[in-house]
Amino acid sequence: MSNPIVHVDLGERAYDIVIEAGALADIGTRCVDLFGAGKRVLMVSDANVAKFYVSGTEALLLRAGFQVSVIVLPAGESTKCVARLAEIWEEAVEARLDRKSFIVALGGGVIGDLAGFAAASFLRGIPFVQVPTSLLAMVDSAVGGKTGMNLPQGKNLVGAFHQPQMVLSDLSVLATLPARELHAGMAEVIKYGVIWDPEMFSFIESHVAEIKALDSEALHYLVKRSCEIKADVVRQDEREGGLRAILNFGHTLGHAIENVCGYGEWLHGEAIAMGMVYAAKISEVAHGFKADETDRLIALFKAFDLPVSWQGLEWGALYQAMTADKKAENALPKFVLAKEMGKVGLPEEVGMELLKKVYDDGA
Amino acid sequence: MSNPIVHVDLGERAYDIVIEAGALADIGTRCVDLFGAGKRVLMVSDANVAKFYVSGTEALLLRAGFQVSVIVLPAGESTKCVARLAEIWEEAVEARLDRKSFIVALGGGVIGDLAGFAAASFLRGIPFVQVPTSLLAMVDSAVGGKTGMNLPQGKNLVGAFHQPQMVLSDLSVLATLPARELHAGMAEVIKYGVIWDPEMFSFIESHVAEIKALDSEALHYLVKRSCEIKADVVRQDEREGGLRAILNFGHTLGHAIENVCGYGEWLHGEAIAMGMVYAAKISEVAHGFKADETDRLIALFKAFDLPVSWQGLEWGALYQAMTADKKAENALPKFVLAKEMGKVGLPEEVGMELLKKVYDDGA
Repeated sequence: MSNPIVHVDLGERAYDIVIEAGALADIGTRCVDLFGAGKRVLMVSDANVAKFYVSGTEALLLRAGFQVSVIVLPAGESTKCVARLAEIWEEAVEARLDRKSFIVALGGGVIGDLAGFAAASFLRGIPFVQVPTSLLAMVDSAVGGKTGMNLPQGKNLVGAFHQPQMVLSDLSVLATLPARELHAGMAEVIKYGVIWDPEMFSFIESHVAEIKALDSEALHYLVKRSCEIKADVVRQDEREGGLRAILNFGHTLGHAIENVCGYGEWLHGEAIAMGMVYAAKISEVAHGFKADETDRLIALFKAFDLPVSWQGLEWGALYQAMTADKKAENALPKFVLAKEMGKVGLPEEVGMELLKKVYDDGA
Repeated sequence: MSNPIVHVDLGERAYDIVIEAGALADIGTRCVDLFGAGKRVLMVSDANVAKFYVSGTEALLLRAGFQVSVIVLPAGESTKCVARLAEIWEEAVEARLDRKSFIVALGGGVIGDLAGFAAASFLRGIPFVQVPTSLLAMVDSAVGGKTGMNLPQGKNLVGAFHQPQMVLSDLSVLATLPARELHAGMAEVIKYGVIWDPEMFSFIESHVAEIKALDSEALHYLVKRSCEIKADVVRQDEREGGLRAILNFGHTLGHAIENVCGYGEWLHGEAIAMGMVYAAKISEVAHGFKADETDRLIALFKAFDLPVSWQGLEWGALYQAMTADKKAENALPKFVLAKEMGKVGLPEEVGMELLKKVYDDGA
């Protein structure tokens, strides 16, 4: 087996991502190494994950000598709200967490983002560990230190940059992940191919069946390579002043779709799959991105049962949501656009006429 | 007039504190210098301050070419809660703030802390300017980058370290500050004397009448010297890993009193005046702090009509609140204790017996 560790080099905020089938079994000892024995820990999870992993993980932490409290929230994007955040904060007080305590986020991106923001803000910041249980969280939201929550008006409008002390990605937990969510996670993996790594893109094209069957070598390669790419980008731009924005390829329309349809109708990966097709088509006009490459992208999304067309979504609502996106300066929407497979530029403003034309043309 | 600027040297997070009678008149030009013209700004204030300063400040910002939105919250400590924070966040969305926009916190410590945390967390952090309108905020809460809010279970349990881009302290606004609040602010000024500057302590002793009459030279000296001391401490320890904790002299009991009595019965300065007397009396036993110095402290608090006795407050409730304080590791209360006038140590645990004895002896 290859090296399970991706080191994220951020100076005094550096941390390891552990990627391994069965990694969860080591959570107790790894946390003792990081924090010392006997500390208080609050584990945050959701109802879906709780069915499989909460009591086992709690037992591992107890056996390692920690004082463990647990809060289980409802599953789903609507949990990423201020009322649930306040519940975590209040549970942290009840559990008497102090500045040497830590939070464990056991779940997908919703739990990781929300519990991470709770850790960033409770007592003005306490340590936390990400234990992502979805492919999307393993390759994206658990890595990079972005935490946050939604407001009624939009996604991730509130949050903090707060790096975890460790990310523990146990590939075996993907066995209990619904296929739809596995496929949505693949949308982000495919994104790394488009923005950074054409070889990985080709690998995915030639291993669709293995990936769908959860082949462990294929998954290990994809998760590790995705983390390496994200860690590389984040290391060069921790607080999103420049390069980091390329990770938002497909996200301008993607966030707008989530916002317009209400969180929950489309999974995040599904929304950004549509957004990536949209961005690729804009890229054809703006940067001569080849239509053949867009077609490869569409074919690959279809192979993972991901949506590629925004048909049926109303233009006015989408456009308004795109201009309200937090990356918009002076209310003009910006897009990360592709130049060739594996190479994108920094976000740039795109005029409404072109946006409307690509919308009208469809996928 | 002496130099109105205290520079807070925090590298890329460095900023200036402007201390001057009439400084508010320059807010527009100073913000243009900092942020560039035409940006969006959300001004956060409270109903008390709004009576005097909101419309004037709004006009100054508009005249400087900014796009200004305003949110006025109820006055008082109970505003420092999650519901009001959410109102600021949502107003920030309505006002279409982006990452180049900024927030102006126009008010006392409650507004500065809450609006500062809103700025720290909205879009994962946007710039903000502190315009403190109380003496307490000018000498303490507006300086140093601590932002936050209360939970039902305790004060300042949630927040972020987020440095402002500027602090604008207009000494003339103190003319509209109720005497009780001016005196409460003096408690923090006196604190700086005890922990750092025995000369300033003596100056206050010999200028009580001038200070109460808002003599501008005396106020300028006290506000500037307090900011210099706080900036010096914060520069050495921005995120409260060590030295910064000495600023909490008097705060262990002070916070407990505010918590037990409910926010609002005692002003923060009043609560920490009692807490400083309590800490001084513990210091007599623990470090040989001279009883004469405690007597000077009590006399000075009385000269500013500040409470010095915790008589009538119930021990059990206070002790429980002290152990729940966020500085408590493993639930043992810690105190900053004085060695001599102008010199204190880092927080140390104090046994329950001594705490109870000093409580019983009274002030």
